[in-house]
Amino acid sequence: MSKELSEEGTRDVSAETCVKQKEIKKETRLGMSVKKDDDFGKWYSEVCIRGQLLSYYDVQGCYILKPSAIKVWNLIKAFFDAKIEKMGVEEHTFPLFVTPCALEKEKKHIEGFAPELAWVTKAGESELAVPLAIRPTSETIMYPHFSKEIRSYRDLPLKANQWVNVVRWEVSDPVPFIRSREFLWQEGHTAFATQAEADKEVLHILDLYSDVYEKLFAVPVIKGKKSENEKFSGGNYTTSVEAFIPSTGRGIQAATSHSLGQRFANMFDITFEDKEGHRSNVWQNSWGLSTRSIGVMVMTHGDDKGLVFPPLVAPVQVVVIPVPFIGADTKMIYEACEAVKATLHEAGFRAKEDNRDNYACGWKYSDSEQKGVPLRIEIGPRDLASNQVRMVRRDTGAKVDIPRGDLVERVRDVLGEIQRSLFDAAKTKLDNCIQVVETWDEFMEALSQKKLILAPWCDEVEVEELVKKRTKEETGGAAAKTLCAPLDQPELKDDTLCFASGKKATTWSYWGRSY
Amino acid sequence: MSKELSEEGTRDVSAETCVKQKEIKKETRLGMSVKKDDDFGKWYSEVCIRGQLLSYYDVQGCYILKPSAIKVWNLIKAFFDAKIEKMGVEEHTFPLFVTPCALEKEKKHIEGFAPELAWVTKAGESELAVPLAIRPTSETIMYPHFSKEIRSYRDLPLKANQWVNVVRWEVSDPVPFIRSREFLWQEGHTAFATQAEADKEVLHILDLYSDVYEKLFAVPVIKGKKSENEKFSGGNYTTSVEAFIPSTGRGIQAATSHSLGQRFANMFDITFEDKEGHRSNVWQNSWGLSTRSIGVMVMTHGDDKGLVFPPLVAPVQVVVIPVPFIGADTKMIYEACEAVKATLHEAGFRAKEDNRDNYACGWKYSDSEQKGVPLRIEIGPRDLASNQVRMVRRDTGAKVDIPRGDLVERVRDVLGEIQRSLFDAAKTKLDNCIQVVETWDEFMEALSQKKLILAPWCDEVEVEELVKKRTKEETGGAAAKTLCAPLDQPELKDDTLCFASGKKATTWSYWGRSY
Repeated sequence: MSKELSEEGTRDVSAETCVKQKEIKKETRLGMSVKKDDDFGKWYSEVCIRGQLLSYYDVQGCYILKPSAIKVWNLIKAFFDAKIEKMGVEEHTFPLFVTPCALEKEKKHIEGFAPELAWVTKAGESELAVPLAIRPTSETIMYPHFSKEIRSYRDLPLKANQWVNVVRWEVSDPVPFIRSREFLWQEGHTAFATQAEADKEVLHILDLYSDVYEKLFAVPVIKGKKSENEKFSGGNYTTSVEAFIPSTGRGIQAATSHSLGQRFANMFDITFEDKEGHRSNVWQNSWGLSTRSIGVMVMTHGDDKGLVFPPLVAPVQVVVIPVPFIGADTKMIYEACEAVKATLHEAGFRAKEDNRDNYACGWKYSDSEQKGVPLRIEIGPRDLASNQVRMVRRDTGAKVDIPRGDLVERVRDVLGEIQRSLFDAAKTKLDNCIQVVETWDEFMEALSQKKLILAPWCDEVEVEELVKKRTKEETGGAAAKTLCAPLDQPELKDDTLCFASGKKATTWSYWGRSY
Repeated sequence: MSKELSEEGTRDVSAETCVKQKEIKKETRLGMSVKKDDDFGKWYSEVCIRGQLLSYYDVQGCYILKPSAIKVWNLIKAFFDAKIEKMGVEEHTFPLFVTPCALEKEKKHIEGFAPELAWVTKAGESELAVPLAIRPTSETIMYPHFSKEIRSYRDLPLKANQWVNVVRWEVSDPVPFIRSREFLWQEGHTAFATQAEADKEVLHILDLYSDVYEKLFAVPVIKGKKSENEKFSGGNYTTSVEAFIPSTGRGIQAATSHSLGQRFANMFDITFEDKEGHRSNVWQNSWGLSTRSIGVMVMTHGDDKGLVFPPLVAPVQVVVIPVPFIGADTKMIYEACEAVKATLHEAGFRAKEDNRDNYACGWKYSDSEQKGVPLRIEIGPRDLASNQVRMVRRDTGAKVDIPRGDLVERVRDVLGEIQRSLFDAAKTKLDNCIQVVETWDEFMEALSQKKLILAPWCDEVEVEELVKKRTKEETGGAAAKTLCAPLDQPELKDDTLCFASGKKATTWSYWGRSY
């Protein structure tokens, strides 16, 4: 397929050759002002805004999620809901507020979240007798309920999920989607009779998260286990999928699936009677995926022209643009566009026709590129005459003319091809960023080259602390820390030493700066 | 259909005749403890809890919405989203927080909501420089954004909707779903170039809300216009659908569609340039439907056995229960149940098999009744022998045996019949509650009889205030007020006088106590 989509045969359709409409919008500056490689941070904000994903809001760290972002999120939701429904997970909605009393039950948990809690202290003109925190996550909101619902082994497993907003009052600089004070997520909370069942689910969910990223967002991720320092506050162990942003050389925790063990069960008295009449604590997990994922996708695929949506999550998969040359039968061109859109729509594609009469077609091309529409179809007089349409890929810019009769089949093929090729390109980039190191010097060199560092490690809390401290001091930049120990471990020879401590290494771990 | 579903031919299948399983759950008390007519308030709480719709939470006025409630809400969402998508409404998600500065822009609006605002004043250990309110509704959050998005007539109409949680710190007694401090809703916000377009949408949305209640929830509602006293704070006029709860004689505002006129546009500077280059304020609407609707449904259809779901919104439409008599081929019965469930599932019904082995079938019948499942299918040895199943209607208790071959068709018919018959029964009850009055004495008499009062009125603010004051004083109970002036107005003769003021009446209005 891709062979046919070449740069050859390019037709010179710029704004100049198109019919100028009465009112070309002059005031709207189109096109990105910053290049991805020149100033990544600025580029990212601009692509989010110009790509119509979000708008800024007058509370710092809070954003307005626009229809494109919500459509992506709803697509993710539908995919993930179908999967977890099969697992017997049931959707709930728990309250937004949590009492200090519940919060404080699990000491490590509250320690971890206390600095980020937003507190409601007043209602109307009255001070509340007891202040209420807004949920940063819902363990302490849900588990008193679990305690009431679970009595016997017959009530297990209990599997609850909710799609809600949470608030974490981050002090560091907010980044749209990636680090915001309010965000949307799903949080699943489950309870099992046995550790084995719970452990199995942790990894099953991690696979689903990996699918969301790799299959839908076309973003390669690494499945792994977080270090002691980086695990969930109050949990037993945390697994995550980690993405990597080559432009900044930063890792990003993309979703997490936690084993909570029995600690919350113990504090919240979540016990069950087994078949023999013995009472035990349940084994619990919690797992979450947030709108951060949208940001990771944008960072991965976006380019100097704007957003690039992988077809499976694209709010609009195909945009059909009329190219009404002067002297041509404009009406017939518009009708052909309408018909093509209708055919695609009927075949199940998210297709849209851009028939705005106040923009030239060149402007529309740029507009659809900026918004990341994976495939553009142009129909001009020549296409009409030869009963064809022109397809233009967003990712490569490659153009190809196809017969109208093959429309649906060819669109399906090329969208599939775009989805695969975005993933492949990102995977190649990621793989090229991975640097295996064995010594401190190699580590520092790789860090300065913005690499995703894979290093043998002794897995000691103090050593990670030391690495953070040293990298901060020695580079003057942000600290480097563990991202995860990949589940897929390279062979670790018996005499391998930790790159940082010189002690015996017990695991391979990814290291780097992170979001 | 209903003729065949008679009480005749009742088979005596109680818990006693069923196979007792090893472990019958003794500790779980089943069955409602209060009758609807005896203590409505207590009955209502109990039916919500026992029907598995919600659980109480340790913050007063906040509830845990359980899977059944969320499933209903998701069904409503799917129905309503499909309708508004056709209107060109696009889903957004705006932030949870609003600044005092934005809130105070529209004076009447803030006056109306100020007493119910929850304020975040602290994050982590720090006081916020400016406290933030949690959205009670999002006019003041969205409209600064509208101001930026709208420049020209080409940007109009702008139609945004969001499905979110909102917080209103009510001081009166909370009632599950009906009056809670946090609730879920959709809020639509639209802007038009002309008043005519805006006005048309107000009524179109009202029709959709009426459909949600009448067609999905099988709850009859009255479409009408709110009085000056009762309209939305800061709005131009408010229309609503009003339901009525005969047991308590209270009206309930079921959903609202507001014309905001140009007042918000003026305060938030939402202007557009028309084709001639003139700049004008937009015309705005806002409209909302909340989880309150679930409570109205419960109050309307629930009975002494528990919940009654209309089939179109029932989380489970059909429950299939095996009736394994002693000596019968239990395995074949379970297989038949599984097959029937699979057939129904494939035909698109929300069907479930209750094959728990620790409950007797009599217990399961009561359990499914309590949860409001519209239709029960029982399969015992006799049914197996004659290749039939028994259907039992939740609403009437009527039973009928049907051939397996007719299953899908008959289930479809009877679910349709239940949906219609629930609506008809509720409509008859509502109609019987309506009392037309012309004088104050008749009004007070009707009020004491818990009637939904239709009275000629002079439509003056002071008169409504006076009626509220007098009814409160004279009855010692809650005040009566206007519910709405029905859009469908009876003829008002020229010389008709207001029942309360004796002045010339200008409209018929519904009056009563309300939630």
